[in-house]
Formats: sequence, structure tokens, C-alpha cells
Amino acid sequence: MSSEICSAKGNGNCLGWAARDASGVLSPYKFNRRDVQGDDVSIKITHCGVCYADILWPRNKHGDATYPMVPGHEMAGIVQEVGPNVHRFKVGDHVGVGTYTNSCRDCEHCNDGQEVYCNRRVRTYNNLDYDGTLTYGGFSTFTVVHERYCFKIPEDYPLASAAPLLCAGITVYSPMMDHKMNQPGKSLGVIGLGGLGHMAVKFGKAFGLNVTVFSTSMSKKDEAFTVLGADNFVVSSDQDQMTALAKSLDFIIDTASGDHPFDEYMSLLKTAGVLVLVAAPSEIKLSPISLIMGKKSITGSGTGGTKLIQEMIDFCAAHKIYPNIEVVPIQYVNEALERIIKKDVKYRFVIDIENSLK
Amino acid sequence: MSSEICSAKGNGNCLGWAARDASGVLSPYKFNRRDVQGDDVSIKITHCGVCYADILWPRNKHGDATYPMVPGHEMAGIVQEVGPNVHRFKVGDHVGVGTYTNSCRDCEHCNDGQEVYCNRRVRTYNNLDYDGTLTYGGFSTFTVVHERYCFKIPEDYPLASAAPLLCAGITVYSPMMDHKMNQPGKSLGVIGLGGLGHMAVKFGKAFGLNVTVFSTSMSKKDEAFTVLGADNFVVSSDQDQMTALAKSLDFIIDTASGDHPFDEYMSLLKTAGVLVLVAAPSEIKLSPISLIMGKKSITGSGTGGTKLIQEMIDFCAAHKIYPNIEVVPIQYVNEALERIIKKDVKYRFVIDIENSLK
Repeated sequence: MSSEICSAKGNGNCLGWAARDASGVLSPYKFNRRDVQGDDVSIKITHCGVCYADILWPRNKHGDATYPMVPGHEMAGIVQEVGPNVHRFKVGDHVGVGTYTNSCRDCEHCNDGQEVYCNRRVRTYNNLDYDGTLTYGGFSTFTVVHERYCFKIPEDYPLASAAPLLCAGITVYSPMMDHKMNQPGKSLGVIGLGGLGHMAVKFGKAFGLNVTVFSTSMSKKDEAFTVLGADNFVVSSDQDQMTALAKSLDFIIDTASGDHPFDEYMSLLKTAGVLVLVAAPSEIKLSPISLIMGKKSITGSGTGGTKLIQEMIDFCAAHKIYPNIEVVPIQYVNEALERIIKKDVKYRFVIDIENSLK
Repeated sequence: MSSEICSAKGNGNCLGWAARDASGVLSPYKFNRRDVQGDDVSIKITHCGVCYADILWPRNKHGDATYPMVPGHEMAGIVQEVGPNVHRFKVGDHVGVGTYTNSCRDCEHCNDGQEVYCNRRVRTYNNLDYDGTLTYGGFSTFTVVHERYCFKIPEDYPLASAAPLLCAGITVYSPMMDHKMNQPGKSLGVIGLGGLGHMAVKFGKAFGLNVTVFSTSMSKKDEAFTVLGADNFVVSSDQDQMTALAKSLDFIIDTASGDHPFDEYMSLLKTAGVLVLVAAPSEIKLSPISLIMGKKSITGSGTGGTKLIQEMIDFCAAHKIYPNIEVVPIQYVNEALERIIKKDVKYRFVIDIENSLK
């Protein structure tokens, strides 16, 4: 890896860290952000969370990589300039930007604040925007975004904590609201305790749910209780513990990206129970009987619409829900990515862009 | 196969046709029904539908067969005696009995009219009842059932047509109501056009849906339009037709018990679309991406609760919805079972018990 600043496309106005090839190794890179237009907000990025997507896309695991690629889609920062038509934000506001930064604004999904399901949505990085330019993510000093895809972060909510809400947070909050998990007294299982899983536990407790964490190892047991407030912790290989939970859960949020059996988790659901998949193992394989007996469902979800993102941020502020984070300088990002692969993080890395990327 | 009447357990008061071993071949058999008790209804069975379950259980495909086994769980008939506490039925009433004939009557499911999800429900045949006796199904001259598990069939609704409603009908009607498919203008795909599938098409049209039938062959195409009223017919191996339907369906009801791919059907669903599995292929296998992109669901369902069964029968009567049936004598039942395996029936066999079982 070279730490020398390379500017492949002219002398750009923005400094980021980019992957140059499928190694996914990041290094400094200068590129151009557009000038602020009528509806745009220019944001000085102070923090950016590190998501598993920042491993998959730069390493071309989706087969659609364009290099240099600047990852990062959990941005928090401060408005430094607004276009003349912007009405929701002013200079100095704290804001966040998530996984998409454009959409058609005219389809049923956009009209419903569900832009994430727009067929023409534009991802925050490694995607062509409507003007033909490539999008670059939040591992960079600033960004320019249409205000529709920006979210207000309350002044007293730390920007470093806000960053992971923009992907990890909304990815679990959105299906929790879709499936009406905010019913006190119901029971929730959370498979996996990473960036997404630990937020599911926090939301579950805020909703008044009885929360059981399923993990492959005991290593996070104490923290699950003391730090996250879970009610129950089960090592998934322990057949006795699993059997004891048969038909006891209303909902399961499955954040495990490694391959794992589904039939045994379905057996833990009550009648009409729902398992929501928010991570992508290589395959789902199960017996139809696991669904037919007890009319159970497997469903999936990916982030959420703009309406719900703002609602979630406000909910977190009101209920003092903060992701557990490890703040690191940009110079540590490649090591952070390796540690994410090894599941060695409690529970989300956040890059201190403001103080380290200069 | 012997057609000689065999009475393995004393001189029974009821004549049925039973399987004696895992060949599943049925032959006459005399057995005992209990005397009518306080809440019981005694029903002279006039008709009984033939379900795929009547192949699986007698052939011990579920591994829990007790012989002799009298199959049949789509009964229609006439009340011939009532117990002193019976208040919903009187002698002469037309009634139906479905897939279960007892339950605990005290759990959350029973209290909600969803007895089918009671952990202690008793199946109509090949199951031990609370009194320790084995249950025997509707391929028999009469039955005795607690009135809770009987359903009123309107006088002007043919009993032969009513029989298949008790399993095939409710198995598709129940998830259609659970998933709010009764919204005119929405679109429904129906995979497979057998006993269940053809009822899904009929309910779909009655609900005002745009209905597309998916079949492995063209053989039922004309009937799908002219007899069942489908709006669209697609041979599932035709990639062009399949691709043209991408993201176009709100719901899919999957009645195919043979193995088939799921990813391609999921791609036909709109955002938040639901595929309901009501038959059991050997395995469900699909990519998590098929669920995550567009927050789609796969769910299952098996028959339905007593409240919904009565509602469905009344709905069929009000909307003149009749299963398409081939009425056969009991002496034809083994051939009928073989024809079901070959999918050679349009669309449900119904045994004329009244006129052939004597």
C-alpha cells in the first residue's frame, strides 16, 4: 500500500481514500466533487462508519467495481454550504448521509419516502449518478448531496455515534417497523452481534421486547447483558438451549453473513413468526415444512427510505440509543477492514475523518 | 387388493376404505365410531374429496402411519343425530368436516378460532384422539365430531362441491386473507393448477385480482382462461415470458409440490411482495438477495382455523365459487390416487360416498 497522495483524475477538490483494484486496499486519492447546485448541501464530513459493504464492493465481490473507488456510506458531518433552493438545512447544521444519494423522485417508492426501492436509485459510491459521474463515498473530506438524501442529526447527538445509524441502524430499524416489532412484551431473537446485531438488540430493548442473542461463541456474552441489555444469550451450537426456546419467539433478526442452518431458527418462532434476513449468507436452504407448520415467514430487508431514516435518528436521540463504536483514524482503515473480517470489533468502526484526513 | 370387507377390530358400526400397509392401497374396512356425546354431531357422509395427503399418509411418507388407516379429510354430509348440548346444528343440516377434529380449546390459538395451530390439535385421520382412540377419515359412511369442528354448508350449495373446500379451499383462502390479497386491482401469480391452484385462481378473481397462472405445460392453458377465468397463463420454462413479468406481481401462491427454483419466482414480485407456499417440495433453496432486494417474503400456510373455514364457505356460496370436480365412486379411489400422482385430474376428485359406499 502506498500512502502517497495519488490524483488519477486531475487535481481534485476532495481528498479521500480509495481502492485501486480488487485487493480492496485503500490509499489516499484526490477526486472532484461537483459544485453546490440549487438543492444541494455541501457537508464537511467529520465521521464515517465502516460497513461490511466497504469490504465487498472494493474487493469486487459484487462484480461491478469501478476503480478508483472511495467507499463509505455512513457519513456524519456539518453543513458548510447550501444551494439557493435548500429549505431543510442551513450552514452549521449537523447532518448524515446514508447508502444512496439520488433516485428518480417520481415513482411510487420515491413518492412514499421509500427511495431505497426506486429502480433508479443511485448508491452513495461505485455507482453512476444521473449526470454521468461516478459516486464517491464518505472516506473523504466533504460531499455534495441533494438535500432530499440528507438527514438532520440533533445537536446533542454525537456525530461519531450518528454515523453508523445511516446504514447499520436503519437496516435493522426499517424491518423492525415494517413487521411491527415495536410491541412491548413480544420476544425478539437476534442472530449475530456485529454492527447490525448490536443495534437490533438496542432497538429491541427500547421497544420493550424480550431480547435473546444468538452467537456462535461465548465471547460476547457478558457484554450482551451488561452493555447491550439483552435478556438472554444462547450459543447457537448448544442444542439444549436451542430446544428450550422452541416456539418462543415472535421475531428473529438474522444478521449473520456466514452460512448457517435456517430450519432450527424457524423452529424457535411462534405461529406466524417472522425471520428477517439483513445479511447475505451464500444461500438460504430450508424445509418447506418449517414455513407451512405455523405459517412462518422468511423475509429480507436492506436499509430503508428517507422518511424512516429521519424517524430512526430522532428515535435514537429521544431514547438515548447510541451505537457502540471504536473511533479510528483514516490511516487505520485497512487494518480495520481486516479486523471486521475477523469479527474483531465491538461493534462498529467509525473513522475520525475530521481529525485524521487532511 | 382384496375388496372383501375386513373387520380387523370387531364388528364395527362404520364402513370405510382403509390402507393396510405402506402400499397405500385402500380396501373396505369396518371399524367403530364413538356414540354421540353431549357436544357431538353425527354426520352421514355423502361426499369426500381426495387430497394429496391421502397419498402421503397412507403410504407412510410422513413416517407416522398406523394401519388400518381410513383417509379422507374433505367431508360433506348431512346431520343425522346431535348430542344434547349441540346448539349450532340440527338433524338434516348440511355440514362439512375438514382436516382436524379436536384441539385443546383453551390455548391462545383455540381461543382465536385458529385451532389448526393448537399444539394439541387432532388430525381427522391417523391421529390419536384425546380418548386414546385412533381417528378415521371421511372415506367412510358416517362420522361423529364435536360440533366445534363442523361447518354449516348452505342448503343451495352442492355437497359434492363443498367437500374440497374443507382442505383445498381453506388452504389457499387462509393465507390469501392473512396477507390481505382481497384488494381489487392487485396482481396474483398462482404456481400449479391442481386442487389448490385452481381454487386460488377462483378466489383471486372473486377478490378482483389480476391472476397469472404458472404451469409447467400448456395442457391447462385453455381451461385456465375459459373455465377458471385467469388473466394470463405462463409456461414457467419460457424465459421470455418470465422476464417480461419481472417485478409485476404483488402476491404468488405456490401450490407446486415438485421441486422448482424459487429465485426466478421471487424476481417476479414487486417490492414487499409475498410468495406463499402451500405445498411441500423437498426443499426451499434461494439466494438471500432475492429477499433483501425489495424486502420480499416467503411464507407458508396449512389449512386454516374454524372461524375462517366458515367464512370461506359462506364466501363461496355468496359468490357462487365452486371447485371443479370429478365425482367418482369409492370403488375407483385407488385409480383416482394414481391419477392424482400423474396430475391427471381437473381439478379435484370427490368420492360419491352416499351412492357407492354401502
